[in-house]
Amino acid sequence: MSGETRYADWIAVDWGTSHLRAWAMTSVGDARAEVGSDKGMGCLEPEEFEPALLDLIEPWLGSGEMDVTACGMVGSRQGWAEAPYVAVPCKPLELRPVPAPTKASRLTLRLIPGLKQETPADVMRGEETQIAGYLAAHPGFDGVLCLPGTHTKWAEISAGEVVSFRTFMTGELYATLTKQSVLRHSVGEGWDEAAFAGAVAEAMSKPEMLAARLFSIRAEGLLRGPDPAAANARLSGLLVGAELASARPYWLGREIAVIGAEFQAKVYSEALAWQGLDVAEVDGSAMTRAGLTALHHRYAEPVS
Amino acid sequence: MSGETRYADWIAVDWGTSHLRAWAMTSVGDARAEVGSDKGMGCLEPEEFEPALLDLIEPWLGSGEMDVTACGMVGSRQGWAEAPYVAVPCKPLELRPVPAPTKASRLTLRLIPGLKQETPADVMRGEETQIAGYLAAHPGFDGVLCLPGTHTKWAEISAGEVVSFRTFMTGELYATLTKQSVLRHSVGEGWDEAAFAGAVAEAMSKPEMLAARLFSIRAEGLLRGPDPAAANARLSGLLVGAELASARPYWLGREIAVIGAEFQAKVYSEALAWQGLDVAEVDGSAMTRAGLTALHHRYAEPVS
Repeated sequence: MSGETRYADWIAVDWGTSHLRAWAMTSVGDARAEVGSDKGMGCLEPEEFEPALLDLIEPWLGSGEMDVTACGMVGSRQGWAEAPYVAVPCKPLELRPVPAPTKASRLTLRLIPGLKQETPADVMRGEETQIAGYLAAHPGFDGVLCLPGTHTKWAEISAGEVVSFRTFMTGELYATLTKQSVLRHSVGEGWDEAAFAGAVAEAMSKPEMLAARLFSIRAEGLLRGPDPAAANARLSGLLVGAELASARPYWLGREIAVIGAEFQAKVYSEALAWQGLDVAEVDGSAMTRAGLTALHHRYAEPVS
Repeated sequence: MSGETRYADWIAVDWGTSHLRAWAMTSVGDARAEVGSDKGMGCLEPEEFEPALLDLIEPWLGSGEMDVTACGMVGSRQGWAEAPYVAVPCKPLELRPVPAPTKASRLTLRLIPGLKQETPADVMRGEETQIAGYLAAHPGFDGVLCLPGTHTKWAEISAGEVVSFRTFMTGELYATLTKQSVLRHSVGEGWDEAAFAGAVAEAMSKPEMLAARLFSIRAEGLLRGPDPAAANARLSGLLVGAELASARPYWLGREIAVIGAEFQAKVYSEALAWQGLDVAEVDGSAMTRAGLTALHHRYAEPVS
């Protein structure tokens, strides 16, 4: 109506507990610009949500209305507004973003709902959008998606549906053990590929030994001298190996793709490849954008 | 020589990372008085060690010399002085306390060495004294001692020797998960015995599922409403059950005693009893004193 050329056609937002990222999207689904901050849901009061978002996307807003489609903890009960969980089995590409109230009348905010599973009890928020992004590009995918992170998800996909999923606290165990436990004295920066490979193999053959093997990292440092890089890789390997042993019913004999940040995705892909699997490695941030794009175009009202 | 009647014949000290406890001991091995503080090794600089101890035991010192026998992290490399680890197999009742320098000339301080094991790499400091205490009262014990704590120890005992041992980080995992992880939102005070029993059974039958079951505590809270007492007991049960599965080669078909603080010892004893074992439950603090007493009387020079 105004004839103004807008910088962004719509805005994609990934807003988790510890981070906030936004992309200025063109009508054909390209990201023209990306901004990010550490203003995650976890460190904000409810009245700070909208100012934090506006602060980031202000330069992209014209004088007219703007559609914003967001995923992640922003749609949790403690978030901007609740986008109630959708029960599996369900099709991520058919998730309908839920409108959320805004004070700035020119913003139309929609939040992508998370997924829930009754038995075993499980939930996800944010990963459903990455899965939607993957399925948008691979509509016939029949297999398993592994999404490593603080709370790693394994999702069984068939006929465009998430059939079931399971969350592992591996990333959070790694973070709390390296920062808070006695292992903080032993684990440091750096990586030792052989230590990682050995620990994965050990953990997969006797996953129940986890708590004892964790302490052995400390004992080895005391008895044989420190090796912070090897201890770091060994801790990762023990945790990832225990997770793979546990998730075996998910990946055994299946087609599999790992969706995540570079290093995490690489570590899981490697460990899975050692089990004889042919693993696709996919960038997590790209899948988030792709999922936001697919769901935005499916459900957003056309902006005049 | 002075004819002075002394309040204490000698002083027993248990000095760990987070606590300091001392007992005024009579010549026949009774504790006449007990004092404690939170001045563990972990929060003190080396120059603060002696003042912290004197501050506590001053009232028990006469004008003459005083023997002090101590166990725990006080004898580690970062402690008052290093009492080097003794390699297993070895007899805890033959551990020779190592003299440590003091500024107060009237104190004669001796530190009980810890134990080490080369393969798998493992160490203990403090528990060897509790084991000595148990063996002083049960010289013919042939079986397994379980010592629950921040770092739970399982020790195989035969002919008065620690043949092998293994440390599990169960207690520390519990503490970091309840304080630092996403589970802090779900776990609270209180106890639910049925939740504990169910979690032990679950964890023992599929111990490799630990990381997934941990997250299910959070997911259940989100989907079915909070039950902090049940979540607490379930978290304990999952961790203890995974440990018991892992330690099965230690306890299966063996005579077993659990040495620990009241609640921890009870929890382990129960879980072991559910496996059909006849478990003796022994007070950890009493065993520390008994071990200090046995090793003190064996090696301390007679005080004039």
